[in-house]
Amino acid sequence: MKTGELGEFGLIDILTGICEESRGEVSGQDALVVGIGDDAAGWNGPDSIQLVTTDMLVENIHFKLSTTSWLDLGWKSMAANISDIAAMGGLPQYGVISLGLPPDTEVESVERLYRGISDISRRYGLVIAGGDVTESPVTVISPAVTGKVEKDRILRRSGAVAGELVAVTGYTGLSAAGLELLEAPDLNDRKTGGLLIEAHLRPSPRVVEGRILGECGVRVAIDTSDGLLADLSHICRSSKVSVRVYGESVPVHPVLRDLFGARSLELALTGGEDYQIVFTASKEIFEEAANRIESPVTVIGEVTGDEPGGPVIIDGNGKSIEYNRGGWEHFSGR
Amino acid sequence: MKTGELGEFGLIDILTGICEESRGEVSGQDALVVGIGDDAAGWNGPDSIQLVTTDMLVENIHFKLSTTSWLDLGWKSMAANISDIAAMGGLPQYGVISLGLPPDTEVESVERLYRGISDISRRYGLVIAGGDVTESPVTVISPAVTGKVEKDRILRRSGAVAGELVAVTGYTGLSAAGLELLEAPDLNDRKTGGLLIEAHLRPSPRVVEGRILGECGVRVAIDTSDGLLADLSHICRSSKVSVRVYGESVPVHPVLRDLFGARSLELALTGGEDYQIVFTASKEIFEEAANRIESPVTVIGEVTGDEPGGPVIIDGNGKSIEYNRGGWEHFSGR
Repeated sequence: MKTGELGEFGLIDILTGICEESRGEVSGQDALVVGIGDDAAGWNGPDSIQLVTTDMLVENIHFKLSTTSWLDLGWKSMAANISDIAAMGGLPQYGVISLGLPPDTEVESVERLYRGISDISRRYGLVIAGGDVTESPVTVISPAVTGKVEKDRILRRSGAVAGELVAVTGYTGLSAAGLELLEAPDLNDRKTGGLLIEAHLRPSPRVVEGRILGECGVRVAIDTSDGLLADLSHICRSSKVSVRVYGESVPVHPVLRDLFGARSLELALTGGEDYQIVFTASKEIFEEAANRIESPVTVIGEVTGDEPGGPVIIDGNGKSIEYNRGGWEHFSGR
Repeated sequence: MKTGELGEFGLIDILTGICEESRGEVSGQDALVVGIGDDAAGWNGPDSIQLVTTDMLVENIHFKLSTTSWLDLGWKSMAANISDIAAMGGLPQYGVISLGLPPDTEVESVERLYRGISDISRRYGLVIAGGDVTESPVTVISPAVTGKVEKDRILRRSGAVAGELVAVTGYTGLSAAGLELLEAPDLNDRKTGGLLIEAHLRPSPRVVEGRILGECGVRVAIDTSDGLLADLSHICRSSKVSVRVYGESVPVHPVLRDLFGARSLELALTGGEDYQIVFTASKEIFEEAANRIESPVTVIGEVTGDEPGGPVIIDGNGKSIEYNRGGWEHFSGR
């Protein structure tokens, strides 16, 4: 079978099996707290959990140099990794970057790429401490970011229980909408769509929000990198619960609604790369978190536990809505 | 200017400058012990220095699927990263792997890749704890490996002083010779060249040797990934010293000598990817280390400090030998 037929998540399952088989014989694995299948890996350090994550961007798969500037690309390449740390409740610490470049890449372009990397790193307190530069037929950026989180404040994908609320920070769907505007210049009204394009090109990982969620007692969270529904399905799978999402409660940004009309809810539910945080919590914990987080935090559903197979979306009449697109999955397409 | 004209090391200099500029404003950077320009990055943890490194392999640049099996590729892809930790005197701990794959890659091939990754990880006590799988036009493997080393035992590229001996573990040039055998099947006498091919396909990072060097009081080391002379030039540059290498002292493995004759010394001096450790030390420390390390450890020269510009190779008559190839550098060729 080809990887393209199996899909990203099927492949990850197989590779996880191989790693776990061999891990049994490795010393020191007692200290592993979070292995494959969460936003970042984590292990017990002397005074906190050490985190590490990696997320690769490949030219023409994740970005096109025709629609993304080198400066934005640098920013974006770190955003996914910083967001993985944020979704664990952690603080980003150090980054190393493997960079593959065609030999005819202008040095000035690489400088701009690194300016973008520096910009977002400074924003989030990340220090770029090393890396590797090598030749490649297409541009490949593969950062790894470390971080840390207090042992009693880590956010996981597992542990959601029936009866908890499901909530999300900010708005989703903006990045996917921004990409559509960039790729269809005739639709592209930069005056009104600027917020969407900005969301796509320079996403803001929710590091502060992740910290507050951990402080308030939230224990289950994921970042919206694959899309709200797809990421919720990861929580369902890891927590062995179901989730009911009330379509009418999903926050749709006014700009998204204005420009995309009837499609705006679908984009909010399935568009990836917004790097918001979706989490589950009791009503009390949710209210404390919502009070302390500056940006909007919205309850969009509840953990049910009795409907296996990922999130169910309910419309205003109590009927379930079906979407063909379950979010972004590599290889087997959208 | 194109990156291909500037070369890998020139590019790294520029990117280091950009990162260091921005780092000044970042909090927490006090804890950074080793930044860009060593084998791995390192920062002060509560009881040891935490290390992280990344090293990317790109299809048709670093390996060909026609001459490398998926199993060997998995092994090799981790070897460079484990070696970076070894060259800091550290113990490898956790690995995360970004993997880019063409969609027509057989799932079975990826399974074999991960078997190879598991094999070497088990050998060196590394635990694979996460990663990322994505589509890519060519196969790209970008692992990041973390490790740790006691604060008083870290090995750096800087700190070599005139009068110290220069020594190397094991033999160099074997991997480059093995690659030549693999690429020229008519020369390929697998019976006698097996050791060279094995050195190329399944290199053994010197983790135990790095630990012993640190324990014995060695403070300056690098792994031979770019080639003995090129890696020594990194020590010269970081330590602001010169090194004199006695060509006749450089250990040449009998199999290398038998098969490559007059070229064997050049291969030992310039061939990359052997993942031995070259270090500087006083005579007393060298002798203690050589007694405790099981494999051969050979003095090949001395730190001089008065001949700027990288290592000088002296032949049996005291004359300096010139090599066009200063070791492997990406972009600007060998």
